[in-house]
Amino acid sequence: MYFSSDNWAGAHPAIARRLLEASEGFASAYGTSALDRKVDERFSEIFEKDVAVFFVGTGTAANSLALASVTKPGGLTFCHHEAHIHTDECGAPGFFAHGARLHPVGGANAKLDPEALAAAIARFPDGGVHFGQAAAVSITQATEFGTVYTLQEIDAVKAVAAGRGLPLHMDGARFANALAALGCTPADMTWKRGVDILSFGGTKNGCWMAEALVFFDRELARDMPYLRKRSAQLFSKSRFIAAQFDAYLENGLWLDLAAHANAMADRLREGLARSNRCRNAWETQANEVFAVMPRATMEAAFAAGATFYDWPVPADRPDLAGPDEVLVRLVTSFATSGEQVDQLLAHLG
Amino acid sequence: MYFSSDNWAGAHPAIARRLLEASEGFASAYGTSALDRKVDERFSEIFEKDVAVFFVGTGTAANSLALASVTKPGGLTFCHHEAHIHTDECGAPGFFAHGARLHPVGGANAKLDPEALAAAIARFPDGGVHFGQAAAVSITQATEFGTVYTLQEIDAVKAVAAGRGLPLHMDGARFANALAALGCTPADMTWKRGVDILSFGGTKNGCWMAEALVFFDRELARDMPYLRKRSAQLFSKSRFIAAQFDAYLENGLWLDLAAHANAMADRLREGLARSNRCRNAWETQANEVFAVMPRATMEAAFAAGATFYDWPVPADRPDLAGPDEVLVRLVTSFATSGEQVDQLLAHLG
Amino acid sequence: MYFSSDNWAGAHPAIARRLLEASEGFASAYGTSALDRKVDERFSEIFEKDVAVFFVGTGTAANSLALASVTKPGGLTFCHHEAHIHTDECGAPGFFAHGARLHPVGGANAKLDPEALAAAIARFPDGGVHFGQAAAVSITQATEFGTVYTLQEIDAVKAVAAGRGLPLHMDGARFANALAALGCTPADMTWKRGVDILSFGGTKNGCWMAEALVFFDRELARDMPYLRKRSAQLFSKSRFIAAQFDAYLENGLWLDLAAHANAMADRLREGLARSNRCRNAWETQANEVFAVMPRATMEAAFAAGATFYDWPVPADRPDLAGPDEVLVRLVTSFATSGEQVDQLLAHLG
Amino acid sequence: MYFSSDNWAGAHPAIARRLLEASEGFASAYGTSALDRKVDERFSEIFEKDVAVFFVGTGTAANSLALASVTKPGGLTFCHHEAHIHTDECGAPGFFAHGARLHPVGGANAKLDPEALAAAIARFPDGGVHFGQAAAVSITQATEFGTVYTLQEIDAVKAVAAGRGLPLHMDGARFANALAALGCTPADMTWKRGVDILSFGGTKNGCWMAEALVFFDRELARDMPYLRKRSAQLFSKSRFIAAQFDAYLENGLWLDLAAHANAMADRLREGLARSNRCRNAWETQANEVFAVMPRATMEAAFAAGATFYDWPVPADRPDLAGPDEVLVRLVTSFATSGEQVDQLLAHLG
Repeated sequence: MYFSSDNWAGAHPAIARRLLEASEGFASAYGTSALDRKVDERFSEIFEKDVAVFFVGTGTAANSLALASVTKPGGLTFCHHEAHIHTDECGAPGFFAHGARLHPVGGANAKLDPEALAAAIARFPDGGVHFGQAAAVSITQATEFGTVYTLQEIDAVKAVAAGRGLPLHMDGARFANALAALGCTPADMTWKRGVDILSFGGTKNGCWMAEALVFFDRELARDMPYLRKRSAQLFSKSRFIAAQFDAYLENGLWLDLAAHANAMADRLREGLARSNRCRNAWETQANEVFAVMPRATMEAAFAAGATFYDWPVPADRPDLAGPDEVLVRLVTSFATSGEQVDQLLAHLG
Repeated sequence: MYFSSDNWAGAHPAIARRLLEASEGFASAYGTSALDRKVDERFSEIFEKDVAVFFVGTGTAANSLALASVTKPGGLTFCHHEAHIHTDECGAPGFFAHGARLHPVGGANAKLDPEALAAAIARFPDGGVHFGQAAAVSITQATEFGTVYTLQEIDAVKAVAAGRGLPLHMDGARFANALAALGCTPADMTWKRGVDILSFGGTKNGCWMAEALVFFDRELARDMPYLRKRSAQLFSKSRFIAAQFDAYLENGLWLDLAAHANAMADRLREGLARSNRCRNAWETQANEVFAVMPRATMEAAFAAGATFYDWPVPADRPDLAGPDEVLVRLVTSFATSGEQVDQLLAHLG
Repeated sequence: MYFSSDNWAGAHPAIARRLLEASEGFASAYGTSALDRKVDERFSEIFEKDVAVFFVGTGTAANSLALASVTKPGGLTFCHHEAHIHTDECGAPGFFAHGARLHPVGGANAKLDPEALAAAIARFPDGGVHFGQAAAVSITQATEFGTVYTLQEIDAVKAVAAGRGLPLHMDGARFANALAALGCTPADMTWKRGVDILSFGGTKNGCWMAEALVFFDRELARDMPYLRKRSAQLFSKSRFIAAQFDAYLENGLWLDLAAHANAMADRLREGLARSNRCRNAWETQANEVFAVMPRATMEAAFAAGATFYDWPVPADRPDLAGPDEVLVRLVTSFATSGEQVDQLLAHLG
Repeated sequence: MYFSSDNWAGAHPAIARRLLEASEGFASAYGTSALDRKVDERFSEIFEKDVAVFFVGTGTAANSLALASVTKPGGLTFCHHEAHIHTDECGAPGFFAHGARLHPVGGANAKLDPEALAAAIARFPDGGVHFGQAAAVSITQATEFGTVYTLQEIDAVKAVAAGRGLPLHMDGARFANALAALGCTPADMTWKRGVDILSFGGTKNGCWMAEALVFFDRELARDMPYLRKRSAQLFSKSRFIAAQFDAYLENGLWLDLAAHANAMADRLREGLARSNRCRNAWETQANEVFAVMPRATMEAAFAAGATFYDWPVPADRPDLAGPDEVLVRLVTSFATSGEQVDQLLAHLG
């Protein structure tokens, strides 16, 4: 009953086996091998566009390098106050981008509210040297709350960003889960919506360690080879990332895995809806479920071997949980089985 | 005939298989799993001392974080002018350490000359606010020229560093090769010599991507958890590094692989010594061989399918190669076979 | 009728003359002259404690270097969301402190609320590597809203900071105005309250450019000589700052100037209290007055030659101004005359 | 007998008086006052070109911001190994430019040798991601050795820089002294030679604290307002710098002061040429003289009240001084009198 995070899973067998097969033989280093190039091209096929792809080691690196590539002196990136880059990366975006700052903005369901975004950006007019300069907008898809921006919602955010000429970054640590939830194409959810840079995550969805930074505008990627190397994210045996992506992207495996994880979350959410003791905190669309339950129920579940995290109640929804209740996050993954879900539900009653 | 670099090899079968085995099941993330802890303890056993170990993704990260952990404002790290941190990391040490600088120092065979080091450090007396402050000394073992510091030579460098209270860092991207060459224990070559921080490389010697930062003084590692996270080097599925090290360090595999690579280099060096057209540029002790040969010979070898790099003639040895000659670097690895060496030698005549 | 900012005034005649006198002769550079040392000692006398003093060029530099001296990797400084370091320094604190972040906290009248501060700090427990680590607390005295922390209020903030072992920084860009308002000694308002580092401003109160960073704990200042030089804040002809402070601190001139500016603000505030069209937005104690007035009144005052800034209505007090009203900031200085105040009041009716 | 540095002098009376006059009245802050704008325009007149001017506080700031404005990730600025930015700024250029590095190059008389420069740049071909990317070339005029680049010599450096598309920065801490030595126009010595960015120093030549960053290409200055603010170099009462420059640039005062300082250096050099005990180390053209003398002579001069620094013998000229001899640096300024020079010469015999 492991629901702590999708990064508690290991690697999918098909990916692990491909890595084993790729371990033989010699190949040129630092992303220049035939396998690296094959996977590079695969990304362009999947996105139906010529993209610049850079493998990196962690989601933190992907996000921080994305912001570093578009920052300016005194630069500000606008993001939701629940964004992972804002809450969970130990200041990495500021470090990579030379002191540039994140400006948190609100919005329901951890999605940027376009009006609030417009108001926030308006506070930083061009030439306002004391305040700093607007540099980028970043959204997370799927969000940290398990919700998914609709295509129209991305359009609305893009319209605001474009109104100031700001590039739009998408943190896609759970990109596949969002895609599976929307049922659209990768192109539909990204560059056709005006996304300029994508952090494309593979790790949480069945890879060991495979993250890619995808630029839909090659010009923005101009300095990236140097930024990546200077940030210690250029891997010598790069083919070990390429091999993971090779299997991950083959025959739609990545979407199958995401669909499975989402289905497990659906099963969990539906079970919670029938529960007497617990309830869904809000509707989610991807592979995360947020539930409110008595503290005693949570502790009993822990005692029975379940793992998951209790979660801070959002400041703007203080009445979400009662005095003896807790908010918890439950994450499913490619490795979650229906039995595990049912077993957990049995404990949550 | 792949002699470009030891990072052109893949992963050793035992390591690749262990990774496959580790891909199953759930484990807590970010370096907290049972396997992570087991490998942590293994490092302490191998070094015969309680050490603080931090897995990171690249040698560049290990070196840059090591220097960041001991730098000071306006800080200077003294290293050989051929050191990898000085020539090959796109300024990463300066970036990680907030503008701190490397101060290059000379010495034969790419080893720091203790007298030159003492003279260089003396130029930065305490309180010399315009010049900056001495912060650390870094050596590479085995060196970028394929040579290996003797234990006495490390002692001599340490004596100079200790005279100013400077911590000593060792870049051990080819640590195992140096150890195999000297035939001493890991403890002998590190903390017993006064090494404070070690970049322990596994990637070049049969792992996919496994590097560790080893602190022999836990106090120096105080801020490292935050430095590593802020630098995007904390891996969620950390066990995939742990699994590699688990196999690597089991039953002395790491030393066997290094001994094999060194033996292949010996075979190559001995073959060159018998050559009519080529000659060894200098004596090496680890898994790199530097040879001088007619340019035409190099090109014929390339045409026959050999891969290796020609190398800049060191500025202090301009007479090393004649007008039609080139200096080349030949690197062996765990995956190099005797047949490959003999085949190359046949072309080099 | 200049009420835009106290930095629109020039230099007080006594200070300007002292600078003229000091322009003759030779003196050793970089803060080592007899005059520099004399002023250093004067600071220790004024604060009744042996302090370490560093002259710098701007308040931004003083604040940013203060935070740089106590930051940690992934470090967070807690400050009011209206703090100058948070809103008006183009990200300088993050730049000087290597990506370290400011964490904004609320509180009435632009003063940190101790309970909100405690709650904010509690979100960053030791060891929370994803979130970063608490590094410092910073308050502004007088605040950006013209209010002044009482000694008891500083005690309350210090108690929270000390509970986590965090150093307390005071941004004293208007230190003299606060001191004149409270009528206590410099020691009372700083180290006796637990303030560890003070940005001591002279520029806004009659100097040309004279700011000092005062450390009440010399150990915290250990790296400051290098931090200051590396940040381009070490002035060669440092005596030109020393000369300003020499006159400024002589015979209580600095407190007389601040008392005058405060009295002019009192006169203004009292006049506004009698106004039919305008009203004080909140009570202030130092040399800033915030008023609510019809937009037409503001524009008429501008047309009559008055200068001042309209000001964003604080987000937590949206009802402060009516639909046709504006909030404005009026700042007095050592150079403001009673006639100017009365002339402005005549326009504000 | 003060010959330690030109920054041991105070301020010229005309400049100090102008500052006194400017101390009255109110003026808008942060470089927007009428006096600021007047001086801005004066710069364009003097350089016979529309230039972008930014006042800053120190030469370190001017140089570091210049390099920050043109750096790139992993960027390298090529400069002479004796350049002030390389030896004397505590790593400020690396800090301001996010870890970007200086690459030292040789050349006689502290002037960059164009061939050596070309060779150095060639080591960093485009796309060489491990090595970093060439970003800028910087020269010092007058140099740290008191020599002055001829116009032809600047042309030769520019030709090399332009061959790689690198901007050319000139550190003009002693710009006026060089100009007076060459007898050409400011335009001749800068943009007509291809200089893109100039650190224009006033402090060493009679100002209290007046440095300006001059961009001959406004496009390169695009981000400078934010870079300057973020670096804490935007002064609120900016008119105090403007007032200094106003007097400094009026009626050629700046060139008269430099000509005087140079004449005093000539007098000193000529005296040394007649000395029995001392000799000029090399020919200088600006306001610095380097002399070789017996250590006993130096110590006797110190005992008689002279101040100057002994200087490290350049590594490439080890035979410059005999075993009991020292190299010393003697700097003259606007405030140096002929009597002082003669008095010193009397001691040097």
